[in-house]
Amino acid sequence: MGKNRLEAFSDGVLAIIITIMVLELKVPHGESVEALTPLVPVFLSYVLSFVYLAIYWNNHHHMMHACYKVTGQILWANLHLLFWLSLVPFVTGWMGENRFAAAPAALYGAVLLMAAIAYWILQQLIIRSQGRDSILKKAVGGDWKGKISPVLYAIAIALAFLSPWMTLAIYVLVALIWLVPDRRIERVLATNAT
Amino acid sequence: MGKNRLEAFSDGVLAIIITIMVLELKVPHGESVEALTPLVPVFLSYVLSFVYLAIYWNNHHHMMHACYKVTGQILWANLHLLFWLSLVPFVTGWMGENRFAAAPAALYGAVLLMAAIAYWILQQLIIRSQGRDSILKKAVGGDWKGKISPVLYAIAIALAFLSPWMTLAIYVLVALIWLVPDRRIERVLATNAT
Amino acid sequence: MGKNRLEAFSDGVLAIIITIMVLELKVPHGESVEALTPLVPVFLSYVLSFVYLAIYWNNHHHMMHACYKVTGQILWANLHLLFWLSLVPFVTGWMGENRFAAAPAALYGAVLLMAAIAYWILQQLIIRSQGRDSILKKAVGGDWKGKISPVLYAIAIALAFLSPWMTLAIYVLVALIWLVPDRRIERVLATNAT
Amino acid sequence: MGKNRLEAFSDGVLAIIITIMVLELKVPHGESVEALTPLVPVFLSYVLSFVYLAIYWNNHHHMMHACYKVTGQILWANLHLLFWLSLVPFVTGWMGENRFAAAPAALYGAVLLMAAIAYWILQQLIIRSQGRDSILKKAVGGDWKGKISPVLYAIAIALAFLSPWMTLAIYVLVALIWLVPDRRIERVLATNAT
Repeated sequence: MGKNRLEAFSDGVLAIIITIMVLELKVPHGESVEALTPLVPVFLSYVLSFVYLAIYWNNHHHMMHACYKVTGQILWANLHLLFWLSLVPFVTGWMGENRFAAAPAALYGAVLLMAAIAYWILQQLIIRSQGRDSILKKAVGGDWKGKISPVLYAIAIALAFLSPWMTLAIYVLVALIWLVPDRRIERVLATNAT
Repeated sequence: MGKNRLEAFSDGVLAIIITIMVLELKVPHGESVEALTPLVPVFLSYVLSFVYLAIYWNNHHHMMHACYKVTGQILWANLHLLFWLSLVPFVTGWMGENRFAAAPAALYGAVLLMAAIAYWILQQLIIRSQGRDSILKKAVGGDWKGKISPVLYAIAIALAFLSPWMTLAIYVLVALIWLVPDRRIERVLATNAT
Repeated sequence: MGKNRLEAFSDGVLAIIITIMVLELKVPHGESVEALTPLVPVFLSYVLSFVYLAIYWNNHHHMMHACYKVTGQILWANLHLLFWLSLVPFVTGWMGENRFAAAPAALYGAVLLMAAIAYWILQQLIIRSQGRDSILKKAVGGDWKGKISPVLYAIAIALAFLSPWMTLAIYVLVALIWLVPDRRIERVLATNAT
Repeated sequence: MGKNRLEAFSDGVLAIIITIMVLELKVPHGESVEALTPLVPVFLSYVLSFVYLAIYWNNHHHMMHACYKVTGQILWANLHLLFWLSLVPFVTGWMGENRFAAAPAALYGAVLLMAAIAYWILQQLIIRSQGRDSILKKAVGGDWKGKISPVLYAIAIALAFLSPWMTLAIYVLVALIWLVPDRRIERVLATNAT
């Protein structure tokens, strides 16, 4: 399996997910500014999910950059990741339409948690396929972001039934943690090149 | 017709099919966990179809890897395959919304059957275009998976009006048969390279 | 403007058009086979439009194969073609839901006519950009298919208010005319290569 | 981050945005020509947005052509641009369904304004990444189009509550300003090549 086709397919799926998500922003019937009010939480959910999917696209690219051979396992681990990400538009719409109510906010976190686990599995399989001197292993290093994210998601899910706003704040926090550009892989690749 | 553009177009169509299918998972109106209950069969249908389309994408890639020349016939056989696969979101939605009732379960199998036949035709055309020493022919060998799948689909369709759950079990079984990674083509290609 | 990016963008748009068209096949509410009956004309319209879009994709590829330089005019003529093709899902849905009634059948033909004109303009611009020895001009030759199609569409539109079924028959006829593989360009390219 | 993957992803997102926009053209229930009347403003909005997105695709391509290194900042500035463009189908639908009423027409302009600002930020980041001899800086030169567009959008938004038709006229005007092919970058690249 060529790496290029895997990347192209993943990019295609991510581009479609990120774009059809906007279809949950249903055109309101009224023509006044007030008609937009019920859409505000839907819009905010959209912004959050857009950022999450953009982070995944970005990190996925960096990870694949450090992957030289695509095995059957890597291919299916990648599809597994895409599966959970494909559910983002659904949970985004449900959370937005119910103004961040408890159950939708928890389900949103559950999908993020599963996607994070799927990403971790994919990363481990690529590292294992590279043997002892795995360049990806060196690149991710301690991988504190990858380790803390699932923990934060789990806390957020548990908190959803107490305070959905705390839950939401944690989702925003995790996104911000990842938004800080991840130069680890770039740095190791640059070092190896010299 | 360049092989690359055919692959890219097929990948595009498959990526879109696999992704818009999630639009059948309509955002429920309630905000409670119970509001999700009617969506469970829709979700399970989605998982099944996601796996089927992923298998097709995977096998399609391996097959095209062993295809060196795209004739007009191969091009149209490929479009014929994409046509049947494009109906998967529709039958997935109908089966899911009617909790695996008889007619929807049978129609789901009919579309899978037509796609399997379309895949077989495409495979035959590629083999024929390669002449006597067809590398693809060597690669698929006895092709027992390709032969048993249509038979199982036909049995599943017939069973739908007796026991839709048996039908569903067969669909899951066929997916599992294919999920076992198909290393035949890879092996033959590797042998030829040495 | 690189030809590759123009091709990739056109392929992307065509792949999406051909795929979202299936969303007009709305999942019926009943679970019986009879629930599918009102969908039969929608399905037939879908098949017809799928074939038309596949023909456009195929011919577009052959034409771009004989295009070496993308000017601003060619780029906009290409977008103009994509615009009319993007309306195909809409007219397909309207024609299918109204069982080939007069006005929808005529509008379907009008969109096909505009797409045919847009294709012709694109072809002329590519030929003109190639100067006197245009390889594309040699390839399309008399271009009887390109000339007869708009005439047939115009007749079909006029007939729609008399007999929509005649109109439909003409649409099928034009599709069949184009389905016969167009080897003109391939032949001229092959001749030039020797 | 490879430039190719950034371009391919941007193209994918733009192709999907431009295409799903047509889903706002809801298939009417009647079969008469009159059933189309309420769709006329939706259709006109669609044409306007199609042209705007086509202009963005075109200009984006030219800009990326003059970009040699993709930094993390450029990558996020590009995603920021795609975010605002992804809202075009929503505002197009709202404006079309309310026949160019004040609030929808103003919001349409607000999204165009934000996209223009996002485009400008992306352009500045690319120029800055190229240092003193930035080829893109030379290419865009005075960039009067880029400077006048936000001003015109702002005027159009302010006018929306007085005369939506004036607002619309300004949107059409800005599109026409950009439709004139932008040969600046091509010219500078050609000069540099000699």
